[in-house]
Amino acid sequence: MRRVEIIRHFSKYAAGSVLIKQGDTWVLCTASIEEKVPSFLRNSGKGWLTAEYAMLPSATVTRKERDIKKLKQDGRSVEIGRLIGRALRASLDLTLLGERTITIDCDVLQADGGTRCASITGGMVALEEAIRTLLLTGVLTSNPIKCRVAAVSVGICDGVPVLDLDYAKDSTADVDMNIVMTSDGRFVELQGTAEHNPFTDEQFDVLRGLAKQGCSRLFAEQESTFEAERRCYENCETQN
Amino acid sequence: MRRVEIIRHFSKYAAGSVLIKQGDTWVLCTASIEEKVPSFLRNSGKGWLTAEYAMLPSATVTRKERDIKKLKQDGRSVEIGRLIGRALRASLDLTLLGERTITIDCDVLQADGGTRCASITGGMVALEEAIRTLLLTGVLTSNPIKCRVAAVSVGICDGVPVLDLDYAKDSTADVDMNIVMTSDGRFVELQGTAEHNPFTDEQFDVLRGLAKQGCSRLFAEQESTFEAERRCYENCETQN
Amino acid sequence: MRRVEIIRHFSKYAAGSVLIKQGDTWVLCTASIEEKVPSFLRNSGKGWLTAEYAMLPSATVTRKERDIKKLKQDGRSVEIGRLIGRALRASLDLTLLGERTITIDCDVLQADGGTRCASITGGMVALEEAIRTLLLTGVLTSNPIKCRVAAVSVGICDGVPVLDLDYAKDSTADVDMNIVMTSDGRFVELQGTAEHNPFTDEQFDVLRGLAKQGCSRLFAEQESTFEAERRCYENCETQN
Amino acid sequence: MRRVEIIRHFSKYAAGSVLIKQGDTWVLCTASIEEKVPSFLRNSGKGWLTAEYAMLPSATVTRKERDIKKLKQDGRSVEIGRLIGRALRASLDLTLLGERTITIDCDVLQADGGTRCASITGGMVALEEAIRTLLLTGVLTSNPIKCRVAAVSVGICDGVPVLDLDYAKDSTADVDMNIVMTSDGRFVELQGTAEHNPFTDEQFDVLRGLAKQGCSRLFAEQESTFEAERRCYENCETQN
Amino acid sequence: MRRVEIIRHFSKYAAGSVLIKQGDTWVLCTASIEEKVPSFLRNSGKGWLTAEYAMLPSATVTRKERDIKKLKQDGRSVEIGRLIGRALRASLDLTLLGERTITIDCDVLQADGGTRCASITGGMVALEEAIRTLLLTGVLTSNPIKCRVAAVSVGICDGVPVLDLDYAKDSTADVDMNIVMTSDGRFVELQGTAEHNPFTDEQFDVLRGLAKQGCSRLFAEQESTFEAERRCYENCETQN
Amino acid sequence: MRRVEIIRHFSKYAAGSVLIKQGDTWVLCTASIEEKVPSFLRNSGKGWLTAEYAMLPSATVTRKERDIKKLKQDGRSVEIGRLIGRALRASLDLTLLGERTITIDCDVLQADGGTRCASITGGMVALEEAIRTLLLTGVLTSNPIKCRVAAVSVGICDGVPVLDLDYAKDSTADVDMNIVMTSDGRFVELQGTAEHNPFTDEQFDVLRGLAKQGCSRLFAEQESTFEAERRCYENCETQN
Repeated sequence: MRRVEIIRHFSKYAAGSVLIKQGDTWVLCTASIEEKVPSFLRNSGKGWLTAEYAMLPSATVTRKERDIKKLKQDGRSVEIGRLIGRALRASLDLTLLGERTITIDCDVLQADGGTRCASITGGMVALEEAIRTLLLTGVLTSNPIKCRVAAVSVGICDGVPVLDLDYAKDSTADVDMNIVMTSDGRFVELQGTAEHNPFTDEQFDVLRGLAKQGCSRLFAEQESTFEAERRCYENCETQN
Repeated sequence: MRRVEIIRHFSKYAAGSVLIKQGDTWVLCTASIEEKVPSFLRNSGKGWLTAEYAMLPSATVTRKERDIKKLKQDGRSVEIGRLIGRALRASLDLTLLGERTITIDCDVLQADGGTRCASITGGMVALEEAIRTLLLTGVLTSNPIKCRVAAVSVGICDGVPVLDLDYAKDSTADVDMNIVMTSDGRFVELQGTAEHNPFTDEQFDVLRGLAKQGCSRLFAEQESTFEAERRCYENCETQN
Repeated sequence: MRRVEIIRHFSKYAAGSVLIKQGDTWVLCTASIEEKVPSFLRNSGKGWLTAEYAMLPSATVTRKERDIKKLKQDGRSVEIGRLIGRALRASLDLTLLGERTITIDCDVLQADGGTRCASITGGMVALEEAIRTLLLTGVLTSNPIKCRVAAVSVGICDGVPVLDLDYAKDSTADVDMNIVMTSDGRFVELQGTAEHNPFTDEQFDVLRGLAKQGCSRLFAEQESTFEAERRCYENCETQN
Repeated sequence: MRRVEIIRHFSKYAAGSVLIKQGDTWVLCTASIEEKVPSFLRNSGKGWLTAEYAMLPSATVTRKERDIKKLKQDGRSVEIGRLIGRALRASLDLTLLGERTITIDCDVLQADGGTRCASITGGMVALEEAIRTLLLTGVLTSNPIKCRVAAVSVGICDGVPVLDLDYAKDSTADVDMNIVMTSDGRFVELQGTAEHNPFTDEQFDVLRGLAKQGCSRLFAEQESTFEAERRCYENCETQN
Repeated sequence: MRRVEIIRHFSKYAAGSVLIKQGDTWVLCTASIEEKVPSFLRNSGKGWLTAEYAMLPSATVTRKERDIKKLKQDGRSVEIGRLIGRALRASLDLTLLGERTITIDCDVLQADGGTRCASITGGMVALEEAIRTLLLTGVLTSNPIKCRVAAVSVGICDGVPVLDLDYAKDSTADVDMNIVMTSDGRFVELQGTAEHNPFTDEQFDVLRGLAKQGCSRLFAEQESTFEAERRCYENCETQN
Repeated sequence: MRRVEIIRHFSKYAAGSVLIKQGDTWVLCTASIEEKVPSFLRNSGKGWLTAEYAMLPSATVTRKERDIKKLKQDGRSVEIGRLIGRALRASLDLTLLGERTITIDCDVLQADGGTRCASITGGMVALEEAIRTLLLTGVLTSNPIKCRVAAVSVGICDGVPVLDLDYAKDSTADVDMNIVMTSDGRFVELQGTAEHNPFTDEQFDVLRGLAKQGCSRLFAEQESTFEAERRCYENCETQN
């Protein structure tokens, strides 16, 4: 598995702001809070979380034209934004969040495979950073985070199961699977694709095991970014 | 599992045209052939298959506004179109198809849950209908279909594993999984989502088993629609 | 004139749902009701009817790209949608409808000429189906339908006046006219076009006569679809 | 009928440029020539004519937002542009035009009813102005204009047949009809609409008669704008 | 400097309507008033002025495709519209205007260089025309116009400083500068561009001097259009 | 003037990649090369440079919605992208560049005033980075860079001339001017705006002087980033 670095408080304006580097994949994940909800939740007492995913034009080997030039959001970006949203909503008790919306923006600065998984793992930290601010400022009194989520890709390359595929591996893999787990060991999302060479039960079970190992390491990384703050933060909580 | 009816040769212009009814879910699946490929495949000798998914405004309980009015393709439709395309490409040897593109259009006339799975199961039959025409007319000399694919949804509702969820069940399910299999028992795509209540290994294994049963029945339905024709068709093949 | 078949209650969600088959032209016409009106009618006490027309990609010999791919509604579809709306509004007393909007969706499943006329004739039945529900459920107490409307195309092909042109005739006709009439024999809309060979008064008069015959037959078809129901419905009305 | 003024050579860049004033309705009609045709005519030897219609934001009592702000061409403008195109194509022998496209732009500077008809009448003059240039410069050797076309609106207001409706009359008329005729007395397009009060055969016949009178006067106006030029032009022709 | 002609009350519906002709550059400038403001000014007591700039398709030597066909407002038009808005807002005390929005539409009928400057100079007159109406009708009681603005282009062509460039000069100029001044001799906007041959302090100072001369003449032109009216208007004011 | 930091080789895929930090304003500037030119330069032997500017949603205090959601590029971004392009083209001999296009992408990660100027200063370094690669790899044999450009903002805040405005100062400034200079002391672009309080000749002269000082410091910063490389690079050049 590639080296993971999670840099918190990366930029200064968003409520949560994280730069996650997983090898050469770099994603800026930010969390913004708005005091309103989509119309289908109005007067429900519940909050919402939505996510958007995009690549900078310079993030890939060949420059990627901006969506606005084609007046159409890239289909893959739509699909990934929806995945990130579902994954991160699984970490929240939306009733405790109250009628507000959190938007998670995942902007890929550099893409070397696994950007959607890094977005979820980093987005979780940005989300928690934002929630902590809401708790510290007294906007929220109970923590709506039920558990953390993290995501990792696994695949089969030349018949060998691989954890955390970079772009080179990803583009030649027979099976490509993205697995989102909760910190208590359950599955939130499981997306396996094998357009070129369908997989068997046994292959799937090996990949699932590998993903569990990967997610464990990611949960440790997430936890470590909050360590210093946790002490300070718990003190603050006591004092309130 | 709900009653499945696959009506072939539904409309008269497309190369393949199938109306699939799975309970109250009705999808018109058509296959159209164009003698050119996307630019990334030009001069590769390979063909391509792409799919589009849309709902008629009257397909759901509340009228659904047309995408063109919002100048934006519905995010869910984008995601499903991409899934159908990946699933059906898994059934094809694109080299044997030659430099042509098959477009599978899945237009939902009535939606009662499971429309993406019905689109794949029905789209497979429309695809095969179109390929048979290409073989009969001599445009193709080898059959590019490697295997059939079919898809079924499974989920956990009130703690009980369920096969082939209708809309009422789908909207209250804790886990919702769409599984695409090949006729030789392998997995092409496996998409499990549990935004509200993440699932365990054991729950997943039960659902996977259920999906296998469901797909077996769908493969039988697909096969039966070609029975009469197969005899005629195999004769034709012999004579050629 | 081609054989006309009007299938009512075709799909289950819309307030009115009709599949009209006129030869090989098949149009799904549905009526949906919304309890609000466009801003120019707010607080006027009046209702509104609007119509949308579209072709499925597989409806024609050559696959027709979806509007959303070009981010532009097809000009011909815009023009036809506006025509259907004007035609069907002529059948309604909008004050009796009250402040609600009926949307007529005409989706062409198969196109063999005369789709705009079939949309009006079939849309009228879907509209009436929806109005009957509003009357039966007591939402409306007076019937806002003033009269029925139906439409037929006429033209001059190789010098010969023709009623109800199919695609082959339509594409070679010198004059192409679409006539919308009311069930009491007046004209709602009259659109004659002769880009290639302008027509004379005399030719016009022959075509108008032909159209009247065609509309008579269409009114009979519409009427027959309500026959069984009428008895039941009139009984219901008496009982209320 | 309102006073008609046709000002030729209004602006200096387009091949044909006409400002037509019909009462307070002012339309700038220009004809531009491009040495290529739409793909469906390539290598056919035939030319094409297309038309676009738009209103300036300040043309109406209430400022009209620009289409580009809504990213959608106004439905009424689409419909009218198509009408103008069909009407003016009827005046041309497209084979004599050769593989070039003439675009007629009709931009309404001030709208007081009857803009579509004024666009056709003025567009015809702009078209002829452009064709004359092509003839004079030797690009064309035979005149592709078969006849002139002109258009007028007629209607029934408070039961009285009226010729050339201004906005006040148009918005209260029971029947509104736009009639496009050729200079040899035939009909190119005939669009009658009676959303509020359908019309009878007899009413139609009266309106048709009125329209013929109106078109006669418009043909005289068109003719007079070419009088001086005609002498010069015929001399030129002789000398060539 | 080219001959300038400012025709007031050009069209009849807008609150202010001016056709400015500067040589062969013709721009129709209109001012429309709406009794509401953008959301960022709601309940601020302040008004707003916004401007839109567009070219008719026939305004240039080569026909310019309409923005709506490309679904994208021309970048240059966006830039110019923003410039006109900033320039004209500098003439207004937005608090005295009250919570209403004035939209200045600048539609270029014929373009021979300097269209953005002519739009500002002519737009100022249309703005004043509209404000006068608001004063005369008592909607406003104090005049929100602080000063007039006008704009002129200057440039260096073949080493020679030039005032008021037409298209031929503009397209070969080394330096191209648009200067917006107030009637009391100060600068509102100053945009110099020298993509091909950057300029020096000295060159700039010469151009600035030239622009001052040009603006003086434009202020005189603006003033003269109000002369007759001023007398009448001041009388009216006295009588009120 | 705020502290400037120019980080070269920031991301790994683009031909040039620079992160410029000017106080809390951070812009990622990248240069991508394509071996083709816009149609108006085809077969001219000349190259082209174009620029695009955008803000990440999290770059500002209030989250900024993505352009693609509104299907419209932000007007301010259009204007700034065009400015960056003109400014950087002034540094190039497009004939020496040959028929290729360089795209400069300026993506604002954090915005605290002066983003357009930072984009130009940083974009110049990214451009030079890309050109050096083309020279080192022998694609180019002569350096097309004629001079460097840099940009700085100046303004008048509470009557005091200020260099390099941050957001707080920028939003209250009476005059706001962006000046682009060449490394040889001439002006490429000069954009002064004084919507609220027009400026005099004297004020302008003070600001221009201030801008010259600012640009001098920026040229020094640009130069220092190439120092180490220059030695290496000049050696390489000698060896070739």
